[in-house]
Amino acid sequence: MNDMTQGGSHVHRRSKGSGRWEGVDCLPYKEDEKARFKAISRQVLFSDPALAAELRFFEVAPGGFSSLERHQHAHAVLVLHGRGQCLIGREVRHLQPHDLVTVPPWTWHQFRAGTEEPLGFLCMVNVDRDRPQLPSDEDLANLRADPSIAAFLRDP
Amino acid sequence: MNDMTQGGSHVHRRSKGSGRWEGVDCLPYKEDEKARFKAISRQVLFSDPALAAELRFFEVAPGGFSSLERHQHAHAVLVLHGRGQCLIGREVRHLQPHDLVTVPPWTWHQFRAGTEEPLGFLCMVNVDRDRPQLPSDEDLANLRADPSIAAFLRDP
Repeated sequence: MNDMTQGGSHVHRRSKGSGRWEGVDCLPYKEDEKARFKAISRQVLFSDPALAAELRFFEVAPGGFSSLERHQHAHAVLVLHGRGQCLIGREVRHLQPHDLVTVPPWTWHQFRAGTEEPLGFLCMVNVDRDRPQLPSDEDLANLRADPSIAAFLRDP
Repeated sequence: MNDMTQGGSHVHRRSKGSGRWEGVDCLPYKEDEKARFKAISRQVLFSDPALAAELRFFEVAPGGFSSLERHQHAHAVLVLHGRGQCLIGREVRHLQPHDLVTVPPWTWHQFRAGTEEPLGFLCMVNVDRDRPQLPSDEDLANLRADPSIAAFLRDP
């Protein structure tokens, strides 16, 4: 929701049986056409002038993934449901509900849902933040030199 | 966790069957001896110099409650598990998993677990924030003038 008094109430409920909250827009993952991603939606749960950070909820459909990117700003991620994998720097990790994931500044990262169920996670970021940087061909080759990262980055 | 590289990993898992995360300290709710609260613990999930906000997890045992307070800084709350009630300003609301709750600046607020199960919620706050203000006898009388607030504030 975009301010503290939207809809006149201080409480917003999640719609039954869905990954969507009442009064919260379900948005495209991002607007950058150059970024490569698949089957992912974004809801901004909290964004308010009184808060220095935002809390967003991303849902990645089975087989989907976020864009591979890095930036100055940090991410703080909490998995709410589903399973999948993430790449953080050169670390490939399985994800399950309630996992905490930190993405430090200037660290390549990507989130991928498994094939069975959607992966839903919260992501906290500073309001003031830089734009993501996408990998060059050289960056990709460098990452893919590691077999576990190459396997992670395979496209379905 | 207190920085982005604690324990050398970027992923921290929740211990099986508990409300606690590995590598995250379970702390007293607060240090202020004047604040009135009951049966509540605090875990700081994300606190890092790169982030302008913190994400904390509070768990209120059945029958427990957070302190009734207000302050300049805002809260953004997401219920992870359990049921209970909250007071936000003069609004008393039931809580269930995935509810979003906004606490605007200078708004009296309190969270109470029901009698059956613990209430667990995330709370995002700015790193730079003021100290909470506790209610005076006059503030309490003013709140209790509303029967639904009086019923909410009853002590067990």
